[in-house]
Amino acid sequence: MKRFLPLVVTLLPVALFLGARGPAALPTSDPKMATPRYDKTGALVRPEGFERWTFVGANIGMSYSEEAQAGPGEFHNIYTQPEAYAAYAATGKFPENTMFLLVVHEPAQKVSINKSGYFEGPMKGLAVSVKDREHSPEGWAFYSFDEGAKLAATAKAMPTAMCFDCHAKHADDDHVFVQFHPILRQARPRSP
Amino acid sequence: MKRFLPLVVTLLPVALFLGARGPAALPTSDPKMATPRYDKTGALVRPEGFERWTFVGANIGMSYSEEAQAGPGEFHNIYTQPEAYAAYAATGKFPENTMFLLVVHEPAQKVSINKSGYFEGPMKGLAVSVKDREHSPEGWAFYSFDEGAKLAATAKAMPTAMCFDCHAKHADDDHVFVQFHPILRQARPRSP
Repeated sequence: MKRFLPLVVTLLPVALFLGARGPAALPTSDPKMATPRYDKTGALVRPEGFERWTFVGANIGMSYSEEAQAGPGEFHNIYTQPEAYAAYAATGKFPENTMFLLVVHEPAQKVSINKSGYFEGPMKGLAVSVKDREHSPEGWAFYSFDEGAKLAATAKAMPTAMCFDCHAKHADDDHVFVQFHPILRQARPRSP
Repeated sequence: MKRFLPLVVTLLPVALFLGARGPAALPTSDPKMATPRYDKTGALVRPEGFERWTFVGANIGMSYSEEAQAGPGEFHNIYTQPEAYAAYAATGKFPENTMFLLVVHEPAQKVSINKSGYFEGPMKGLAVSVKDREHSPEGWAFYSFDEGAKLAATAKAMPTAMCFDCHAKHADDDHVFVQFHPILRQARPRSP
């Protein structure tokens, strides 16, 4: 026993650290990364705790149509897992199980001392993109959790004509609109 | 020696964990929290690595004046340390050494398939608020790192009439405009 003790002492912190994470045998580069969960029908379970994820950029009133819209439009805040962000910054690739959350907020103004411009009012929608070839043969799938006044607990993948085709054609890097998100633009490794 | 071994084994992970953090005798509730650093003149050193901090909300064109402005105005992305966010969610108080970063981006549009609305263009400014009574007798101080085309490495506190007075008078909670930031509004513990 005695001669194994140094090994036990050495490995114990590692074991405790791993134990704290719970079971983790995930096919991603970083086993701490939150991964997509699906119900028995294959619908994506709404990711939670995104407040701790890495924010990559915001936008307002973004539209692909030239039609005039009333008012400023909605805010979108875009998040990804911290580990997906780190992998992209290090390698220029989004690992399998990367998720992007698009959190929708109503625009608000004229509260307190605010006189012009817009801040983010109540959250009113959530869309998620997931890179998971095991689940989606195209590599990426897109989900909307909008459901009237509240968010749905699960969502089926949208038809590819609704999101995938446009992301595949126009997004700057691997179906991700890196061009619109400053934190991703800045993280993207420069070509040598 | 032998009878201390279990204690050594028990404490070693803790000791290693603390050791990995480096010296840490900080007057905050969470010793992992990034704390404000000052140079010899008392100027704040520009915080780095905010991409990993907790994003609490964005806004665009926010102004306290009723004067019309040309265009949509600038985007502001607001961040705080993850530990400050966690403390606020748990206790409703911002711990000493809380920092808020206001990251300024130019508005951009009509790139790629975008036809209307605005996304975040290049970063063009940084302001920071710091809760540090040891350094600032008023409790909070405000700093701007704007310096022409690039950001300054350090910044002196702004005169209180520039920021502090208004934050003290109008901000919802302890000099922080919680009312404008959805992630803080949501995290704020409800009164019992």
